[in-house]
Amino acid sequence: MNERILELFEETPETYVSGAEISRRLGVSRTAIWKHIEELRAEGYTFEAASRKGYRLISKPAKWQVSKLLNGMKTKALGQKVHIYDEVDSTQTIAHKLVASGAPEGTIVLAERQTAGRGRMGRSWHSPSGKGIWLSLILTPRIPVYFMPQLTLLSAVALCRAIQKVCQVDIGIKWPNDLLIHGKKVSGILLESSGEDERLKYVIAGVGISVNLLEEDYPEELRSIATSLAIESGGKVSREELVQAFLLEFEEMYALYMEKGFAPIRLLWEALSVTLKRPIRTSTPSGFIEGIADSLDDTGALTVITPNGERVKIYSGDIELK
Amino acid sequence: MNERILELFEETPETYVSGAEISRRLGVSRTAIWKHIEELRAEGYTFEAASRKGYRLISKPAKWQVSKLLNGMKTKALGQKVHIYDEVDSTQTIAHKLVASGAPEGTIVLAERQTAGRGRMGRSWHSPSGKGIWLSLILTPRIPVYFMPQLTLLSAVALCRAIQKVCQVDIGIKWPNDLLIHGKKVSGILLESSGEDERLKYVIAGVGISVNLLEEDYPEELRSIATSLAIESGGKVSREELVQAFLLEFEEMYALYMEKGFAPIRLLWEALSVTLKRPIRTSTPSGFIEGIADSLDDTGALTVITPNGERVKIYSGDIELK
Repeated sequence: MNERILELFEETPETYVSGAEISRRLGVSRTAIWKHIEELRAEGYTFEAASRKGYRLISKPAKWQVSKLLNGMKTKALGQKVHIYDEVDSTQTIAHKLVASGAPEGTIVLAERQTAGRGRMGRSWHSPSGKGIWLSLILTPRIPVYFMPQLTLLSAVALCRAIQKVCQVDIGIKWPNDLLIHGKKVSGILLESSGEDERLKYVIAGVGISVNLLEEDYPEELRSIATSLAIESGGKVSREELVQAFLLEFEEMYALYMEKGFAPIRLLWEALSVTLKRPIRTSTPSGFIEGIADSLDDTGALTVITPNGERVKIYSGDIELK
Repeated sequence: MNERILELFEETPETYVSGAEISRRLGVSRTAIWKHIEELRAEGYTFEAASRKGYRLISKPAKWQVSKLLNGMKTKALGQKVHIYDEVDSTQTIAHKLVASGAPEGTIVLAERQTAGRGRMGRSWHSPSGKGIWLSLILTPRIPVYFMPQLTLLSAVALCRAIQKVCQVDIGIKWPNDLLIHGKKVSGILLESSGEDERLKYVIAGVGISVNLLEEDYPEELRSIATSLAIESGGKVSREELVQAFLLEFEEMYALYMEKGFAPIRLLWEALSVTLKRPIRTSTPSGFIEGIADSLDDTGALTVITPNGERVKIYSGDIELK
């Protein structure tokens, strides 16, 4: 039935089709039509609904252009092995399985759609079909687990720089690794690590980027806090180009980090931060902390200066910009 | 056939039975007997072989005394849920699965025998039946992954103190968490962790203790570097009592650490160390380091003073005592 509905919309592109007409031509109830439209939305189709006019098909889900993606890859190791799926529960889950079966560093997993995308702190992540980049990157850095927070910050720097280059938008990092445009979240990064005593065994960097989502693609409750690159840059963005740019930036930052340590990454992070020198608030196991976010320390922790002049380090958690 | 061989040894306990006699009574070849004896050894039976005399059964595999173990548990949380197996590939693998299915902090896994016990740096661990403690402990500390190395050191302190109390042997810690008696290894600890960005999700502490292994239980190549509590203390040690003592020490150290941080744990570790103030050698990604092991720093890294007076920090790896 979904296919017959799509055919009907494609007869008269760009124009509204009323619910009454669909109902009459396909012989189904208005409620059934609404249900099918919702299913198509979940598959990545965008519809506009207007009262009295009916529905209009605005865009169809894109598919990864695999040869374009692979041919334009300028990296040496990262993204040289690519696993692409139509639908997965989470690209992170797939990547964990790939590591267990011996996948090498640099292997990436891409999916058109995630049914159970994971965000920080066990939150879910809205990942509709064809409009975003839902990517997991396998890394096997030979560094102590002690340095893990630095890798989290490095990932944010690499992605922020890639988005700046491809989309020319005014984007910044909220500690530790959320990317914001005009205060709204456009991308989230989640690094899942596996350690053995004081050594890292592997890291899976999960990246979610809202690329070509339109206003209509967001549930009502997300519209004031989330945005996409298409909305902010005013045009469609090539997902392939952005993945290539991200992996190239990541590879460069990663090599720099392995050679020179955290110092240069820290400077880049600080330059891209929308957190520093601003009043913030966070909750820690020992209570709320309020103050001015001052700087990163050598380990990657955020130093906050409280109203009474005390310097407090935040190692973990979420902060709220005030 | 193995059972018929055992019956034959049990007819005349403590005395030698010649290969010729076994061969005659059971109607099998001498080579077949040797093969069966080896199988029984793998199951935890200890035989002494003497030329011209034959074989003597010295000890049978023990079984965990579950009610004794549970009744004597003085902890509040650790070891209140116990999973005991006859044979597993590795208790760590089981514990990972238990975490995934929601097992709470403090859950432990015990096995009589591991067929693929894991040691540090991907090494295998000799874990014959009934004579050792092969234990995995699930922890879900709400601490940043940054502090993971401290938990590794804490585990060594807890186990070292438990062994001192139960066995009164002269035992010490080699950085970061090997336990040695007279320079020979008696226990190994492996902490496997799972992190999400800068936070720990869970830790599985794997502990292998050579409790009642006899000289004969060790392959030739291990005898100069490995020992057991029974060999060193001159008598059989209760595995149940030792597990109880370890979990109680761990629970106390863990509470102390959560309340006061690493400082008190560091002092205890330093007091039990056989590494500090001694010449050591280690290889790092940037080459060999030799020097005198001086102290632990605030993070748990080992500070080494090189011959030219430089202070170098070792975050990860194995050290060699010179």
